[in-house]
Amino acid sequence: MQRDDCVVGIDIGGTTTSFGIVDRNGVLICEASLETQAQQPAHTLVSRLQVSIEKLRATLAPQTAFSGIGIGAPNANYYRGTVENPVNLNWGASVNLAELFRQRYHLPVAITNDANAAAIGELLFGGARGMKHAIVITLGTGLGSGIIVNGSLLYGADGFAGELGHTTVDPAGRHCACGKHGCLETYVSATGLCRTVSELLAQRLDPSRLRDVSFSHLTSKQVFEAAGEGDPIALAAFDTTARILGMKLADAVAHTGPEAIFLSGGLAAAGDLLLTPTRCYLEECLFTPYKGKVKLLRSELPEGSGAVLGAAALAWHEMEKVP
Amino acid sequence: MQRDDCVVGIDIGGTTTSFGIVDRNGVLICEASLETQAQQPAHTLVSRLQVSIEKLRATLAPQTAFSGIGIGAPNANYYRGTVENPVNLNWGASVNLAELFRQRYHLPVAITNDANAAAIGELLFGGARGMKHAIVITLGTGLGSGIIVNGSLLYGADGFAGELGHTTVDPAGRHCACGKHGCLETYVSATGLCRTVSELLAQRLDPSRLRDVSFSHLTSKQVFEAAGEGDPIALAAFDTTARILGMKLADAVAHTGPEAIFLSGGLAAAGDLLLTPTRCYLEECLFTPYKGKVKLLRSELPEGSGAVLGAAALAWHEMEKVP
Repeated sequence: MQRDDCVVGIDIGGTTTSFGIVDRNGVLICEASLETQAQQPAHTLVSRLQVSIEKLRATLAPQTAFSGIGIGAPNANYYRGTVENPVNLNWGASVNLAELFRQRYHLPVAITNDANAAAIGELLFGGARGMKHAIVITLGTGLGSGIIVNGSLLYGADGFAGELGHTTVDPAGRHCACGKHGCLETYVSATGLCRTVSELLAQRLDPSRLRDVSFSHLTSKQVFEAAGEGDPIALAAFDTTARILGMKLADAVAHTGPEAIFLSGGLAAAGDLLLTPTRCYLEECLFTPYKGKVKLLRSELPEGSGAVLGAAALAWHEMEKVP
Repeated sequence: MQRDDCVVGIDIGGTTTSFGIVDRNGVLICEASLETQAQQPAHTLVSRLQVSIEKLRATLAPQTAFSGIGIGAPNANYYRGTVENPVNLNWGASVNLAELFRQRYHLPVAITNDANAAAIGELLFGGARGMKHAIVITLGTGLGSGIIVNGSLLYGADGFAGELGHTTVDPAGRHCACGKHGCLETYVSATGLCRTVSELLAQRLDPSRLRDVSFSHLTSKQVFEAAGEGDPIALAAFDTTARILGMKLADAVAHTGPEAIFLSGGLAAAGDLLLTPTRCYLEECLFTPYKGKVKLLRSELPEGSGAVLGAAALAWHEMEKVP
């Protein structure tokens, strides 16, 4: 491997697909994005991506070589290289995205879901560097998670390990888009926070500026801003979120015994407003042998490019695996 | 390694310590036990064990060699070789039991808690043979668990991974001996089943022979026998146990994505009375990508000697690890 070797990291979302060229130190040399065009088949996106990637490559030093491609995509299966029944993409039951890229690039291609990619990004380029056991939680519209065990991403028997967003908080609780009730992500996520606000507005009598916002229009950013101004409903909503997150993270610790848990994604931007109470609730719920031993930290990957860096980290991580 | 190489497997309990000599195929060549004498210091037990082990060794063919020692003990830490603050043994804050054995035997010695040993036993000698990802749950007085990930036992950052008995079912729930409230083992274990009976006797009006047994005298065996006779309270208690176990096993699947979950220990002897409804509740609570893919099975290790076989399996597993 030459020092100027790079990989391509690709983050596929329902609306936008971002990609970048990343070296082994996690330096994002250049990046670009295009519309995903979710109604088009997968191979159309792959063709358009190839054109864009080549355009970007042309701006680089001529000796720059690509050693591999890493992809973060919704409902991606690492073992099969497939994207399966993605909710926001009109790609059908299963498409082998890794193979589509391999046909064009003749390079090692690895794919996983965005939360797993974020976890590998944290492991290679972020706060989990040097750790053997860690958990990364992504708090966006939903709650994703990637679990690091013995220095590698845990995929489980079928490639779908690490879906803490769909562990159960309350079996008689909130309806989840997955069809179950009371899943963690219906409470702890940007949308979960807004649902909690709605519940608190019904339950309490405190005055709140959030009483003037419709359910459809309420955003987690508004709740965050209201909390910053001392709005009692917004503050209580963050406290409820932290309590549920702390309790379920204690469960997660009792499973895989991590050294640290990292929070990333939009809601993690709330910073200490979420982290400080979550730390307290987590500590309270931890089984004695774990108490005082598990760090709860913010992701050290930059918010904007974390997903692309994570996808690139996946490519590096694969190439460095002991066969 | 010669074909007639053996290891010593030792299972230390609060009352009895059992040990056996086991070959690589999981054949228990001979076994014996002695009183633990929980009030005596650890080194006294080690001395007495050495005498007993040598007595047993003398009955074997002269070419039989011991290649290692595996120990299952309460509150054992695999990384440190220690037993730390065991509730039922007067051994103090920490004793390096692995080192005490190494000083006498000059052999590789590995130690872990009994549930982890049971999991390795299942992996090497039981139903999990050939599996890369599995979970073993031991249902005795409490609920223990050992998690297999990528073909090895998961120890986590500090050696205490896999304590599902202390995940939370209800943060305002039953008091647990660990100091927390609503831990899984307060519901799903031999004692948890009896507590559920007590709760159901209060809640319902059904006639039940269990109404004539005091809380102190009630055993899970009585509940099992009553269920066999169609006692409605006993049947409801098993159903409640299965519902909570199924829900929390679905959470466990969302963490490590196992191929199968094995139930062992006294309460697992209830067989289909527990397994059949647990399978239904588990399936109901599984996140879509896991549905229909996770087997719930009874341990294939013999009930009486499973703990000694597990400890022996730990010794073999250590020796076969890629360095």
